[in-house]
Amino acid sequence: MNHGSSDRVADDLRTWIAAAAPGARLPSTRELTVRHAVSPVTVQRALRALSAEGLVETRPGVGAFVRAPRTVRAHDYSWQTAALGAAGPARSAASAALRTPSAELISLHSGYPDRELLPERAVRAALARAARGDAALVRTPSAGLLELRTWFAAELAEQTPARYTAPSARDVIVLPGSQLGLGAAFRSIAGPGGSLLVESPTYWGAILAAAQVGVSLVPVPTGPAGPDLVALDRAFTETGARGFYAQPTYANPTGAQWSQAHGEAVLDLVRAHGAFLVEDDWAHDFGITTHAAPLAARDDGGHVVYLRSLTKSVSPAIRVAALVARGPVHERLLADLEAQSMYVSGALQAAALDVVTQPAWQSHLRGLARRLRARRDLLVDAVTAHLPGATIEAVPPGGLNLWVRLPDGTDLARLIRDAEARGVVVASGDDWFPAEPTGRYLRLNFAGPDPGAFGRAAELLAEAMGEQG
Amino acid sequence: MNHGSSDRVADDLRTWIAAAAPGARLPSTRELTVRHAVSPVTVQRALRALSAEGLVETRPGVGAFVRAPRTVRAHDYSWQTAALGAAGPARSAASAALRTPSAELISLHSGYPDRELLPERAVRAALARAARGDAALVRTPSAGLLELRTWFAAELAEQTPARYTAPSARDVIVLPGSQLGLGAAFRSIAGPGGSLLVESPTYWGAILAAAQVGVSLVPVPTGPAGPDLVALDRAFTETGARGFYAQPTYANPTGAQWSQAHGEAVLDLVRAHGAFLVEDDWAHDFGITTHAAPLAARDDGGHVVYLRSLTKSVSPAIRVAALVARGPVHERLLADLEAQSMYVSGALQAAALDVVTQPAWQSHLRGLARRLRARRDLLVDAVTAHLPGATIEAVPPGGLNLWVRLPDGTDLARLIRDAEARGVVVASGDDWFPAEPTGRYLRLNFAGPDPGAFGRAAELLAEAMGEQG
Repeated sequence: MNHGSSDRVADDLRTWIAAAAPGARLPSTRELTVRHAVSPVTVQRALRALSAEGLVETRPGVGAFVRAPRTVRAHDYSWQTAALGAAGPARSAASAALRTPSAELISLHSGYPDRELLPERAVRAALARAARGDAALVRTPSAGLLELRTWFAAELAEQTPARYTAPSARDVIVLPGSQLGLGAAFRSIAGPGGSLLVESPTYWGAILAAAQVGVSLVPVPTGPAGPDLVALDRAFTETGARGFYAQPTYANPTGAQWSQAHGEAVLDLVRAHGAFLVEDDWAHDFGITTHAAPLAARDDGGHVVYLRSLTKSVSPAIRVAALVARGPVHERLLADLEAQSMYVSGALQAAALDVVTQPAWQSHLRGLARRLRARRDLLVDAVTAHLPGATIEAVPPGGLNLWVRLPDGTDLARLIRDAEARGVVVASGDDWFPAEPTGRYLRLNFAGPDPGAFGRAAELLAEAMGEQG
Repeated sequence: MNHGSSDRVADDLRTWIAAAAPGARLPSTRELTVRHAVSPVTVQRALRALSAEGLVETRPGVGAFVRAPRTVRAHDYSWQTAALGAAGPARSAASAALRTPSAELISLHSGYPDRELLPERAVRAALARAARGDAALVRTPSAGLLELRTWFAAELAEQTPARYTAPSARDVIVLPGSQLGLGAAFRSIAGPGGSLLVESPTYWGAILAAAQVGVSLVPVPTGPAGPDLVALDRAFTETGARGFYAQPTYANPTGAQWSQAHGEAVLDLVRAHGAFLVEDDWAHDFGITTHAAPLAARDDGGHVVYLRSLTKSVSPAIRVAALVARGPVHERLLADLEAQSMYVSGALQAAALDVVTQPAWQSHLRGLARRLRARRDLLVDAVTAHLPGATIEAVPPGGLNLWVRLPDGTDLARLIRDAEARGVVVASGDDWFPAEPTGRYLRLNFAGPDPGAFGRAAELLAEAMGEQG
């Protein structure tokens, strides 16, 4: 027998296999005998050798096939460490509020309302209608569908006093979620290396967006009445910043709503410093005992860059938000957003518009306010009854969250670990501070699943607190 | 009569109106008489004065209402110029390929396939099913739906030779469109102030994304066979860049597909320089005479960051794409994308997965290849017959575009203007060059509406060329 021949056939097949996909069928014995001018026995010997090496699987009467690799090698990606260099600033703080813990845990950490608070029927009907319409198949303009832009503008125009010119559709840019709008606003107004004033505490997503864009945040202390005006004025003067990011309505995390007078005072300061107010109206649809009254409706000088999202109130699957801005900054924002995302799915835009223009939307919002109120009060009662060391500085007039202060000595990281071990997930207030936190806080979401468990959650938190003596 | 009283009432109402919304109803005459202790005649006189000033509209028997402002003031936004400073780099080059011109013009400029080339029935059915499922109401994980990630991984795994470990679902991140992935990849790999090698010409969206991220592009000449290997090696050495962005399959704009040997040679260079290849497989589903064979299927060392979009082949409304990357760069990309956009609409992810896993998808792709071939050949014939000065360096084996070289002396801007005046819209090749263009090119899309007009379009282009003597 000629072992040299079968080695030659096997070598040739090894090369062939190296380039083939797993499961590919090898050339037939007949083809191989012809190609290499050898006997079928020689071919069989070569195939047995490859089979012993684990490269080939032979199915009698069918043929020989390339095996999928049985073992997964441990890869060495360490070369990437040199290629990537030191980590950029955008480490994911997102994980806390975005995580989906086990259904057995009581969840008070989420940033989203529970499914039972969504207009489920309207959302399903709107998506089904969008599936039948043109929006399912055409590309929309980069600024968004005209009808949806008109709706966003009209929402502000309804609240615009007669002495101001109301915004119009051409001032509106539709976004695939407000997070992209934060980055665009911070890059357009402050720019990489620039400074931006923010409330402290403020929304962690804004802190994350600023880090990614390379903007330095300057914290301005804020409370239930809104930001400290003296500190705001001083921060503008000292830093030369040309922008202030804030949530005047049901701020995340504190739930604070600025009075109209306080809002006007902030706007006056912003105007006096030739600056922008980035007004993040994230909780517009979540009023409980009051309504949202955006400052953007009281400015026609181009000082307010306004951000409103429908994602939280319509459905997490309808990722649609809008920026409203006037003057040159509008062009800059549009160019920035085109470079980032080009345009927003027309199907989602059509579905969002459909939901918010149904008569059922207004009655949904009224029912939502009642349900949020019941949940908020339930959680306030539970915290008051079971967590004696905790302080609620203000019961929020809207929004989804309760901001609870704990005694100064609390080891927050340990408390959160211990609470989760007992079955309740809460969010550390530290994530909402752009600099060192000024106290120990928890943000408790009262819009999550199972409000019936709020009492139990507070008891478990109290037990975890008790561990710290 | 007491004019002082009516002035007092009018003054009070002016203050009230300034804070009121247009259309708001004024207090009734009865209320005003009581509040100001005046007669109804005095109240009427005040209302007439306000009406004459255009502040109030009186509807007899109904009441008086705040008028909407009749004139829109010309606003002065010049303060923004100082606040915003010099323009950043992200000026919108997007406008050319994204614009929607009048339907009467022949459009050869678009970057998107015509609606008749989309799987319309499958898209509508998929969106309708998504409307009924959980995906319409729940938030999805930030990396994407597991089933869709598994599909994207399996697409690569099918083409992975046995000697490599295939990618898995955990290597995949779902994106709301590939444009966001370009920015994330450039920021993660090169970072602001860093350098990135690119083919020249290359996709304008990549040039735009790099400018926004603050990454400097280093052009490497490319042709129908792919990038010049000597120039690529030299560019890596001279710049120390750790990344190369390329479209190995049906490159936009040239339509070039690298041979397997050329792809392996590029990968070897990338590995030798400890660098990343950002492989933009934008036209995966647009093979005409060949199939896409991604390089990402032939690398398990983490050197390829792979980008694939379904937006163009499924529907512009289904904005879904994916990044596939292994090693630490995967974590960095995920953190970057969370900071940018948080997560992708579950309804769109479910609909995309639905379309591409239907048996009809494979037959759609086969029919699409036939239709693209007929359109491509029609346009090649039209250009050859009517534009004698034009050169087609290579007939593309896939993609949506024909890259046509014009004589060197051509005034391209004027040609495009003159062509549009005659009724045909084309894209200037200049937009695809990261530096000065090396020739006068047009990119002609053969996947747009009305292929029957290709001959006429070429004639009109020839007329416009003729203007230049």
